[in-house]
Amino acid sequence: MKTSIKQEWIHYVHELQDTICAALEKADGKATFIEDKWERTDGGGGITRVIGNGNVFEKGGVNTSVVYGDVTNEMRKELKIFGSKWFACGLSLVLHPSNPFVPTVHCNYRMFELYDDNNEVIDRWFGGGTDLTPYYLFDEDAKHFHGTYKNVCDAFDPTFFPKFKETCDNYFVNWHRSKERRGIGGIFYDYQKPFGEKNVDFWVNFGKACGNAFVEAYLPIVEKRKNTAFTSEHKHWQEIRRGRYVEFNLVHDRGTLFGLKTNGRTESILMSLPPTVRFEYNYQPQPGSEEDKLLQACLHPKDWINEPDKDESEWAQKVNMC
Amino acid sequence: MKTSIKQEWIHYVHELQDTICAALEKADGKATFIEDKWERTDGGGGITRVIGNGNVFEKGGVNTSVVYGDVTNEMRKELKIFGSKWFACGLSLVLHPSNPFVPTVHCNYRMFELYDDNNEVIDRWFGGGTDLTPYYLFDEDAKHFHGTYKNVCDAFDPTFFPKFKETCDNYFVNWHRSKERRGIGGIFYDYQKPFGEKNVDFWVNFGKACGNAFVEAYLPIVEKRKNTAFTSEHKHWQEIRRGRYVEFNLVHDRGTLFGLKTNGRTESILMSLPPTVRFEYNYQPQPGSEEDKLLQACLHPKDWINEPDKDESEWAQKVNMC
Repeated sequence: MKTSIKQEWIHYVHELQDTICAALEKADGKATFIEDKWERTDGGGGITRVIGNGNVFEKGGVNTSVVYGDVTNEMRKELKIFGSKWFACGLSLVLHPSNPFVPTVHCNYRMFELYDDNNEVIDRWFGGGTDLTPYYLFDEDAKHFHGTYKNVCDAFDPTFFPKFKETCDNYFVNWHRSKERRGIGGIFYDYQKPFGEKNVDFWVNFGKACGNAFVEAYLPIVEKRKNTAFTSEHKHWQEIRRGRYVEFNLVHDRGTLFGLKTNGRTESILMSLPPTVRFEYNYQPQPGSEEDKLLQACLHPKDWINEPDKDESEWAQKVNMC
Repeated sequence: MKTSIKQEWIHYVHELQDTICAALEKADGKATFIEDKWERTDGGGGITRVIGNGNVFEKGGVNTSVVYGDVTNEMRKELKIFGSKWFACGLSLVLHPSNPFVPTVHCNYRMFELYDDNNEVIDRWFGGGTDLTPYYLFDEDAKHFHGTYKNVCDAFDPTFFPKFKETCDNYFVNWHRSKERRGIGGIFYDYQKPFGEKNVDFWVNFGKACGNAFVEAYLPIVEKRKNTAFTSEHKHWQEIRRGRYVEFNLVHDRGTLFGLKTNGRTESILMSLPPTVRFEYNYQPQPGSEEDKLLQACLHPKDWINEPDKDESEWAQKVNMC
């Protein structure tokens, strides 16, 4: 059974990589993915696919990896795991659009297994999530994005969405900036171990359903915003916010740090960093501005779905009509 | 005695801040420092001085802080210290010039004291260093910079320079990039505790001598390179290298991480980050190019002073004549 679940997940992850890359290339209309296959000295490897300088995507990557090896002391210490050998397989993507009205998006879906000296599975868990990082906030986009994942979650367990949304809001946090979030969240779950009715198949199917929802969650937002006219001031704000993205990924993100500190493939890990970034001393948006509205949403996560409908601001309506 | 040493160091650090800021403003010829005084909730505060959009300096800061408080569990764990109360005072500067031929520079000089419940000093140490991060390598600049600190060190102890140069080469390392250094080093020393003839006065005087050498070590290089003509390709390479600066500071730098994780003043800590930065997937300079020459110097630190003289490359001579 264990081999077939692994094989099923490995197969799915590569299929999803193909599907997502095809959909993104279509949305971009110009750039295509460049593929780097790499091997890991200590076992396994990956397929890194990067896109850049497109009509829509300034930089992005959709990566898969199937990696395994001996449990090292570093892993025992950092991951607090035991056992003799490990296996991990997942898909990870980050897209940085050039237009500041199109949000950055990240998703990651993975499974992890631990084995004893006889190669028997002794532990196994699933994790993943998708989160949105807009530079300008459109309530309708936030509702669509969160709503898509709520629908996926509700089909599996009605407690999932509120729980995984909260986990997401509490994970992508720049703790050193008054708990400012990287963006407006989405869902995030980790260390989900098969138990009772939520067996291995359940978690594989949940991961697949979330992975499959990516195109539906993100691309309609891209289509709606990709032709919005923008100024150098909008771009400037995007680059300031991208700085916060860098801060989160390099200071706080467990996956990034674990990869960098355990001899992971640096270029595949750091494909997540935005293409152009600004760091300015004590930059503060004008209170009440659209930039400040986004910042406030990052400081105070909210329930996008059950919030009573509000009119879009005049400004947002104007931008929508560009 | 302890009060007077503290007071002497506090006085010196602020005097040095004034001296350095005045010299930098003169070299820039346009921009002036803006000062932010801040207070720390748990004790002490600082004076942050930032400069930007100058003729020479695109972004920079020359900061002092005098901070103290109770030893927290976080500090016991992260710093592996004991005692009841602590005190720290230092100067820290980072300068990011706009011209890619002018190197970025960083320096930091500080003292730290620990006290027991009766406010008696139970431990005390000194640390500091200055390191250079060029984007294009001029051997003569490297020699001048290293030579300046060698002279300072030799007047105190002939073993210092080789030792503190090596510490520097082994500290500013992007371990996740095949041990690529942030730049071409300088000197770095830490946890130097007064002992025997190397008493408190010795270390205060050594810190002062190093601090005083900054203007002499750096500004002649600024003057020599600040009017060098550059292209967008040179700027592009500078922004790629600035990315490595960000990676080091946010992933590896103990001071930055400790500050961010213990409720330090984020804006003062992150003034070290460069103003505009690029992250490109798997960017590699052309082998044999001037960009590659710099990269090789970062990968393979060398003895700049005892190395037999070499002719500058034709390219470097050409640039010198611009």
